[in-house]
Amino acid sequence: MNACVFCDLITTDSPDLLVKEDAAVAFFPLPGDEIAPGHTLVVPRRHTTEGVLDAQPADLAQVMDLAQRLAQRMMAGLGATGVCLLNASGPGSGRSLDHLHIHVVPRYPGDGDETLPWPTGRSRHQPAVDLWAVLKG
Amino acid sequence: MNACVFCDLITTDSPDLLVKEDAAVAFFPLPGDEIAPGHTLVVPRRHTTEGVLDAQPADLAQVMDLAQRLAQRMMAGLGATGVCLLNASGPGSGRSLDHLHIHVVPRYPGDGDETLPWPTGRSRHQPAVDLWAVLKG
Repeated sequence: MNACVFCDLITTDSPDLLVKEDAAVAFFPLPGDEIAPGHTLVVPRRHTTEGVLDAQPADLAQVMDLAQRLAQRMMAGLGATGVCLLNASGPGSGRSLDHLHIHVVPRYPGDGDETLPWPTGRSRHQPAVDLWAVLKG
Repeated sequence: MNACVFCDLITTDSPDLLVKEDAAVAFFPLPGDEIAPGHTLVVPRRHTTEGVLDAQPADLAQVMDLAQRLAQRMMAGLGATGVCLLNASGPGSGRSLDHLHIHVVPRYPGDGDETLPWPTGRSRHQPAVDLWAVLKG
């Protein structure tokens, strides 16, 4: 066991890993923690202790490259009308874990917060698709 | 004049550009639009029509590389205790402009929203430094 739950997912090659690439992986938040259906976390395989602040630039580039492709799949396959990407890093940032993670959140019509760049509530949208199949790519 | 105000800033080599690099530039939001002192926008020189969704991957990597360095300067030079990075892309995302822009926002002690990954209010913090000088690097 590592002290970091994201490192645990990675080093055990967890079946919960949605996408596995050389330097980056993606997975869903814990059940109940998702802001919207399809909300995905993208993280580097290499641990960080201060999120984006101490990530290797090459790792950060790979993480964002995967985040972009996931965002594109949300638009093409989930009926999203937009996406938001968020990272919080450092002790006063609201981050839940120190291992860099980019939230990629699909935005859906009818959620009532389309004017906000970050949703304040949870989406009530229910895409009639297999989220895993769409986002795995 | 371009139809895009960010392209205007870039093509006119505006003195408002805080950092100018090959593929990415950074500048402050319009006065009154900043969430916290030092809040900075990082954008690719090349226009996008759907934010992160249609950015060139190489441009996105350069934008994030600059965003990371600005985040590090906020921690080292502004007294930030954390940073948040946000992008909203697509018509239903709350984005203000289609040209990709990453918000890099320093988080300060005492703002009362340290548990949230994206601040809901505006920081009352007043760093006793020259924001421009610190962030220009």
